Amino acid sequence: MTNSQETLDIIRRGCDELLVAAEMSHKIALGRPLRVKAGFDPTAPDLHLGHTVLLNKLRQLQDLGHHALFLIGDFTGMIGDPTGKNATRPPLSRQQVLENAESYREQVFKVLDPDKTEVVFNSTWMDKFSAADLIKLAATHTVARMLERDDFSKRYKNNQPIAIHEFIYPLVQGHDSVVLKADLELGGSDQKFNLLMGRELQKHNGQPPQCVLTMPRLLGLDVVKKMSKCLNNYIGITDTPQEMFGKLMSISDHLMWRYLELLSFKSIKTIAQWRVEVENERNPRDIKVRFAREIVARFHSRDAADRAEADFDARFRQGGMPEDMPEVQVQSGGKPMAIAQVLKAAGLNASTSEATRMIEQGGIRLDGAKIEDKGLYLQPGAKVVLQVGKRKFARVSMV
Amino acid sequence: MTNSQETLDIIRRGCDELLVAAEMSHKIALGRPLRVKAGFDPTAPDLHLGHTVLLNKLRQLQDLGHHALFLIGDFTGMIGDPTGKNATRPPLSRQQVLENAESYREQVFKVLDPDKTEVVFNSTWMDKFSAADLIKLAATHTVARMLERDDFSKRYKNNQPIAIHEFIYPLVQGHDSVVLKADLELGGSDQKFNLLMGRELQKHNGQPPQCVLTMPRLLGLDVVKKMSKCLNNYIGITDTPQEMFGKLMSISDHLMWRYLELLSFKSIKTIAQWRVEVENERNPRDIKVRFAREIVARFHSRDAADRAEADFDARFRQGGMPEDMPEVQVQSGGKPMAIAQVLKAAGLNASTSEATRMIEQGGIRLDGAKIEDKGLYLQPGAKVVLQVGKRKFARVSMV
Repeated sequence: MTNSQETLDIIRRGCDELLVAAEMSHKIALGRPLRVKAGFDPTAPDLHLGHTVLLNKLRQLQDLGHHALFLIGDFTGMIGDPTGKNATRPPLSRQQVLENAESYREQVFKVLDPDKTEVVFNSTWMDKFSAADLIKLAATHTVARMLERDDFSKRYKNNQPIAIHEFIYPLVQGHDSVVLKADLELGGSDQKFNLLMGRELQKHNGQPPQCVLTMPRLLGLDVVKKMSKCLNNYIGITDTPQEMFGKLMSISDHLMWRYLELLSFKSIKTIAQWRVEVENERNPRDIKVRFAREIVARFHSRDAADRAEADFDARFRQGGMPEDMPEVQVQSGGKPMAIAQVLKAAGLNASTSEATRMIEQGGIRLDGAKIEDKGLYLQPGAKVVLQVGKRKFARVSMV
Repeated sequence: MTNSQETLDIIRRGCDELLVAAEMSHKIALGRPLRVKAGFDPTAPDLHLGHTVLLNKLRQLQDLGHHALFLIGDFTGMIGDPTGKNATRPPLSRQQVLENAESYREQVFKVLDPDKTEVVFNSTWMDKFSAADLIKLAATHTVARMLERDDFSKRYKNNQPIAIHEFIYPLVQGHDSVVLKADLELGGSDQKFNLLMGRELQKHNGQPPQCVLTMPRLLGLDVVKKMSKCLNNYIGITDTPQEMFGKLMSISDHLMWRYLELLSFKSIKTIAQWRVEVENERNPRDIKVRFAREIVARFHSRDAADRAEADFDARFRQGGMPEDMPEVQVQSGGKPMAIAQVLKAAGLNASTSEATRMIEQGGIRLDGAKIEDKGLYLQPGAKVVLQVGKRKFARVSMV
């Protein structure tokens, strides 16, 4: 029983919600590898650390002996946006889906254990689904139940259109759980409603319902916004070791613990021990370095982590990165702002033309990395360290 | 142009609404046979005169040279009620559908011209529809648009469940119009929303949109309720000539004109002429006899009409059907009431046992026809003439 409690603690680590814990304990007690489902977009993946929160959880479950079902939702991807309103979502061809899946494999097996991962495509069963099958599936739920989903209910109240097929997609996702006989499904907290559809449809089909484990979004480097590619607070898993190391070192001492909880493979016990040490005057920077090394090593190599650390030290410690630097707020007016304008507004350059010239000469760094592109824009909400020449620094917040 | 106006008058005769008259004139002016769609349930047909309102309209259009598409909606019929809540709607087998279609043919060709009628089944194309096709179809409309339909909006407001597949059925009906390239669709006024779906989906598919012609429900013999099998105000097209003739003779002098408009094949001009004659003291009974003969002849034969008329005369005129008879209201308490109780409550028999005995002896008539079944119930809202023995009559209203 203690063993089962420990297992439950590992499963719950960093999660938002586990539904239903008692059922989960029961499933663990079965002693067989559980079927753990997680669904992914079939579009071209370009994963950032935020995505790996879910992958890490899958990995933890694999380490406990369970079987990961890495589901690529290509059935809907190959339909595209049938309303035709979203030109950026053209239907994917089967060829593209397979290429994207290959690219997924390359990226996710840096986290997942390939031996305990089954990559599945829902087109395998959905392509055989007839219109009559889909009507029967649609009959299992009511319009009112579907309008309970937060975003549907908001859009309906605000008279924003909801196309009818949008009611069908959560049912397809739930049907995937029936086909896969999932014991547990992982997803973001914003997916909770859809994950519960799986439970309901499994019950409807006489299966034991899957448990549902929701994971939070990873807060980005600007502390407030979620990590996503659209904001300038993104750590891509294909970032260079130097970029990755620098960005991870720039997270706050407070946020660091959350990153460790969600992204580190260190045990709950080890991290608790570190917390105690930091409370007893150990420099949190030491922990951050260990963490940054772990992540760079995972996505590149141990050697790359060594070099990134040495490089970071050379630039910031030895190069004189000040312990305290001025904090400057730049008014973005809610819009992206060209880097030269930011430098001028922050008082780091006298004019935008001076700033542009210095970028061309390689004299400006952003979070420790040389700015190569004078066309760079900073998003509202971004927090970065800008360095002009050798000695001029500012911690700039775009507000 | 006069010709087109006359055609339009014939098409509009008795209708609730024609959408859109200008488009209809344009289609008529094309000078080719128009494709006129009307959809029917695939369940076992047992048609009453109410159903023939639509069939008559189709026949009028055939007489104008147009082509009737008699659509049997068997795709959804073979799905049945997927919620499983409606045990009275089990899925139909293909065999049953075909048998029902055969039974339809036998009945409807008493009204329709077989040479200008094409019987089609929507399973022909819908069975080939994939789940992906259905999703694309569902994407053409919004939830808000669907909730505009009267019955959906009422059920949603009253927290009565609407299963999601109910939103799909109107789209399937509309898609049928696309496949059939319908120029005009006929339906009951309660079908207007669904008929308009056909227009919208045809436009969506680059077709000229069909016109929509809605026909009213035929008021039943009790003047207020619509004619339907559930109420006791039903003239089945397989009723005996005697029953049919008697029931038609019992309609009021006022309602008679509506029946002529909707059911008679006599021209608009002839009926207008009769109206003038009745205003000038012609006995409306003469018109009613002509009409009852027309209908009996249509569903049985001219000979049968002769015999039914003679029989009616023998029983009512010569047998002493009084011109005035007492009008009695019987309190039904909103529930069906056994005929023996009705007879007692109306004061026609002293007791229910006397009434039952007289029924067994063949001494009681309902609307001129001998009551064979002492287990007969009268529905609330029914209006009937009851005759006990030779001389006792009452016009009984179940209230």
